[in-house]
Amino acid sequence: MNIAIFGTGSVGRTLAEKLVTQGHSVTVGTRNPAETLARTDTDMMGNGPFAPWHAANSSVQLDTFANAAAASEVILLATNGLGTLPSIEAAGIENIGSKIIIDISNPLDFSKGMPPTLFVSNDDSLGEQVQRAVPNARVVKSLNTLWGGLMVAPELLADGNHSVFVSGNDTDAKATVSSYLTNWFGWKPSSIVDLGDITTARGTEMYLPLWLRLFGATGSGLLNIHVVR
Amino acid sequence: MNIAIFGTGSVGRTLAEKLVTQGHSVTVGTRNPAETLARTDTDMMGNGPFAPWHAANSSVQLDTFANAAAASEVILLATNGLGTLPSIEAAGIENIGSKIIIDISNPLDFSKGMPPTLFVSNDDSLGEQVQRAVPNARVVKSLNTLWGGLMVAPELLADGNHSVFVSGNDTDAKATVSSYLTNWFGWKPSSIVDLGDITTARGTEMYLPLWLRLFGATGSGLLNIHVVR
Repeated sequence: MNIAIFGTGSVGRTLAEKLVTQGHSVTVGTRNPAETLARTDTDMMGNGPFAPWHAANSSVQLDTFANAAAASEVILLATNGLGTLPSIEAAGIENIGSKIIIDISNPLDFSKGMPPTLFVSNDDSLGEQVQRAVPNARVVKSLNTLWGGLMVAPELLADGNHSVFVSGNDTDAKATVSSYLTNWFGWKPSSIVDLGDITTARGTEMYLPLWLRLFGATGSGLLNIHVVR
Repeated sequence: MNIAIFGTGSVGRTLAEKLVTQGHSVTVGTRNPAETLARTDTDMMGNGPFAPWHAANSSVQLDTFANAAAASEVILLATNGLGTLPSIEAAGIENIGSKIIIDISNPLDFSKGMPPTLFVSNDDSLGEQVQRAVPNARVVKSLNTLWGGLMVAPELLADGNHSVFVSGNDTDAKATVSSYLTNWFGWKPSSIVDLGDITTARGTEMYLPLWLRLFGATGSGLLNIHVVR
């Protein structure tokens, strides 16, 4: 399957590594590929430069957002939250069409110190903003409540018995994304919680401040919540 | 033990019923006891009037916020979020002193439709506002992530194996509140998660939008999250 991943940080790299091992054709999208490859600094999230990672994972393609979107059947948004809408705009509505977008990004604002606050919350969400930006696309918010390493390997914790959420307006798209979660990453169907339409992304994005405190209390991203009912 | 509960709604009543069965002396605080007893309407949350409930639970005392605070060793804030700070002000800093306040309230704003939004979030929390209002009191945010029926009977779900949080600046007060959770309500010590200082109340208050969607998806408050790590 042809899969685009927007975002060159640790989440995008983790997703790309997992998907290429399964034989998928993965294109990482970025604003300017030459610039991405030329960078030598470690970013604010502690990610080393992209080029050495890319050299070690040469089956992953790197291209512009527009080319990555055009070449792919599904788009995974693994951008820094501030980069999410610009990446969609750069990709172009014509290259996205009615494709499924799995929005993994969070509206984290690091400008006011740690832990970050949210730059959209309460009466809107980043997931809804993405859906409004590309009305024909089928946006499913998912995986944004998890550390990247756990997104692609839920079995690392409690034998995989913990929860991942899907929010979206299109029921078929949510079913498709749920099958990707299971087939790509190993999520048990019983662990996938359908919250409802895309406005329910407010719920999972606003969970991030609790996740950040749980992370702060243990110093490890190997944590999650299991919905019990 | 002499316990004050601020708030005459369903959470306050549920807590009062549980605590009097254990032999505690419980005083429910309200702005104007005569007015509370005179009400005959069902409130916006679907609670029937207080007087019939009080007649059936006559060992629970009803008094002003100030008298309830003065008579008690610990104060449970089970107010509607908008009523939380006014209840503290009405109680009077001199009647609260350095007592432990268990803040169960949430900053829910029902004025913009359902589900409610939060009237404070991101860079502040209702828990912090309470702590600032009574700097000498030992405020512990807890139980605010739960339906009232589950607060006092965690065994109703998954044999009690799900999480309750404590946030507060005073380590001893958090330990005391944790012992109350266990001795009063039956919470297993392994289910109690200490998130850190009172600023971590932002995390549990901002979890409410996710709780509201989970509640919306099932229509039952008999749900919770279990932190897995």
